Amino acid sequence: MKKADEQEKLRQIEGGVTAARGFTANAISCGIKNPKAERLDLALVYSTEEATTSASVFTTNRMRAACVQVSEKHQRAGNLRAVIVNSGNANACTGARGLEDARTECRRVAEELGLKVREVGVCSTGVIGLPMPMVRIEPRIAELCAGLAQGKGHAVASAIITSDTREKEEAVSFTVRGKEVRVGSCCKGAGMICPNMATMICLIATDAAVERAELKKLVRECVETSFNRITIDGDMSTNDTCIVLANGASGVRLAPGKPGWNTFRAAVQHVMLQQAWRIVKDGERITKFVTVRVKGARSAAEAKAVAKGVANSSLVKSSWNGGDPNWGRIIHAVGYSSHSVNPEKVDIDIAGLPACRGGVQADTPCDQLRERVQADSFEVLIHLHQGACDHTVYTTDLSPEYVDFNRSEYAYWNQAKQDGLTR
Amino acid sequence: MKKADEQEKLRQIEGGVTAARGFTANAISCGIKNPKAERLDLALVYSTEEATTSASVFTTNRMRAACVQVSEKHQRAGNLRAVIVNSGNANACTGARGLEDARTECRRVAEELGLKVREVGVCSTGVIGLPMPMVRIEPRIAELCAGLAQGKGHAVASAIITSDTREKEEAVSFTVRGKEVRVGSCCKGAGMICPNMATMICLIATDAAVERAELKKLVRECVETSFNRITIDGDMSTNDTCIVLANGASGVRLAPGKPGWNTFRAAVQHVMLQQAWRIVKDGERITKFVTVRVKGARSAAEAKAVAKGVANSSLVKSSWNGGDPNWGRIIHAVGYSSHSVNPEKVDIDIAGLPACRGGVQADTPCDQLRERVQADSFEVLIHLHQGACDHTVYTTDLSPEYVDFNRSEYAYWNQAKQDGLTR
Repeated sequence: MKKADEQEKLRQIEGGVTAARGFTANAISCGIKNPKAERLDLALVYSTEEATTSASVFTTNRMRAACVQVSEKHQRAGNLRAVIVNSGNANACTGARGLEDARTECRRVAEELGLKVREVGVCSTGVIGLPMPMVRIEPRIAELCAGLAQGKGHAVASAIITSDTREKEEAVSFTVRGKEVRVGSCCKGAGMICPNMATMICLIATDAAVERAELKKLVRECVETSFNRITIDGDMSTNDTCIVLANGASGVRLAPGKPGWNTFRAAVQHVMLQQAWRIVKDGERITKFVTVRVKGARSAAEAKAVAKGVANSSLVKSSWNGGDPNWGRIIHAVGYSSHSVNPEKVDIDIAGLPACRGGVQADTPCDQLRERVQADSFEVLIHLHQGACDHTVYTTDLSPEYVDFNRSEYAYWNQAKQDGLTR
Repeated sequence: MKKADEQEKLRQIEGGVTAARGFTANAISCGIKNPKAERLDLALVYSTEEATTSASVFTTNRMRAACVQVSEKHQRAGNLRAVIVNSGNANACTGARGLEDARTECRRVAEELGLKVREVGVCSTGVIGLPMPMVRIEPRIAELCAGLAQGKGHAVASAIITSDTREKEEAVSFTVRGKEVRVGSCCKGAGMICPNMATMICLIATDAAVERAELKKLVRECVETSFNRITIDGDMSTNDTCIVLANGASGVRLAPGKPGWNTFRAAVQHVMLQQAWRIVKDGERITKFVTVRVKGARSAAEAKAVAKGVANSSLVKSSWNGGDPNWGRIIHAVGYSSHSVNPEKVDIDIAGLPACRGGVQADTPCDQLRERVQADSFEVLIHLHQGACDHTVYTTDLSPEYVDFNRSEYAYWNQAKQDGLTR
């Protein structure tokens, strides 16, 4: 109830990642995404305030992209004030050269903006395993920095997307003791990118003043219940990154236990969850948005394993694509996702109707279930009746078009060959 | 080398599951699979020898089909001599009624053949969650038993398949001190059945005489390196069952350390591996057979996790479908499948050519890799260079047609409705 109260205090605003005061941005077209088309593919977000704090969460994939390694090192050393992002190449599995390229990007931005190198974060998204086309990037960094201006948030949102079908922006504001605080963001999809690397990037910029340690704790908590709750194809990226900058330009200092903190938390949570949902809804060639809610598990780990098991089952996802309310496939995924579930206790509701009771078919007529599953969005509720733990995952169907879309990245390799980056 | 020697002593023979002496079989059409078409869907395999021993391995899915629960109980109580199998309905998630139906099948077979109820095993494969159409099955069991005869192995192979495109039979013989021993089998696919339940069934019948405890040990070992090494879509079935009957009709008694044992082991291993490969190659709408071999892992668990992680990645499988030698997607799946892999040590060979060395692109021209991946069958070798453990998994690509094929089981529900089994 309290959480809902706080959310009511939030106002939707325009401006995306530059909605908050004291943030400028720029985006240009360098031919990384497509050398032939004029598509924005290199972006920069910058906080004009020296007192900026930052917190970041990175992929847990062991194959961490070079940009992730460099950004994490910079984040650990202090606070980021600028973030440079490119799309079209993930700078992942690129070895020592990839690290050098990521560092070069940060160094050049730092030189232009008069920052320390470690105050610059770097994100990349696109194809894995190809060297960065630095020949297209490095000569343009001066221009990128020179063009920084207010109100260019939407260009950043455009520059960071790849296979996404639309820009993803979200911004809210709220008032603390008469002063307005803003939280803005842009992100790109995890629908597998380029065509395909599940590379999720989210940049959030707020004009609240927040201590780094407090910001870090809050960001981790909010990521856990938003971006860590979504899955499209179960493939975790080498590049997933969420960076939050807090620059204090609103003049409002926030801290746990102080006025406005809970609303600030609700604002960050709201922004992340909206963006996470957008990522799912814009998943590659998907047709359904499905909430998988598991209740009554013995442990949080079991609840999570069951929710992810169902959400990642190719068979379950295929049936959703066909509008088939197939609880048999759902329970079969439940059965291989947990070692302690009791089959006779499992209840499954699909789109609000009982589909399975006590592990067997419920009385709901099949056609009624079928009708509900034709909707673009529905919930699958799995009650294990074994304990008090629950977990929710947001996911999609699996379409023939998804597979078709992800069959080949050959075009990218051909381009790299022309750039002299591969044989 | 020794294993290869033993395999050389094996001779391919005809006859499928009734290739060995002392086994009879029958298969009839009951309208379970399709009430309108004359398709064999109820089968029985019977050992005429009283001294028969048996060993079985069942699914580890917590949602175990009623037939699995009943067969396991019977197997534990002693030895099976007959196995009744139906296709079209998996008798899974069918509650108390499903257990009663499975027991009724065993009881009726036992009555007709003069066996104890616990000497009869029961397997079902097909749609999950619908009650068994016992009205179609029970009245036909007398006829099924009456028609038992030699040489009907192929009819059994036909009756147990569902979405498989062909029957799966394998039989070999070898000689021990001048006497011939035979090992025959039939199985059905895990390409997800009916259209879809990943229900693998394998029946193996040998005329060797083997103590139950020895047989059990050998069967578990052979299943571990054959059926447990395959994955098509990562969905583990509620019904997977492998039953081996040994009836001694050859007059040859085999035991560990005695002549012929190693060849017998090689024969069972050969039959299971051939059948496992057939299942993969006949996976639903697949176009590639891919061997994923992981070497140099720190532990057996890590080797297995990485092999399965790569083999089950939708993105990796989609790229294989497109004939795309995408090592970037492979290494990204390696990275999320192990917590201890060192990115800089990973080598990947695709179809015998270096694709990745030390975590970065190898020198092999992309077009050469691409050409090799056009083949129907190739190997992906992932060397982690961290230890001495390895693991191999046999798998497939993921095709748009697979998803399309698995979009709906509605036809089965409609049929069940007509049978009064669902609303």
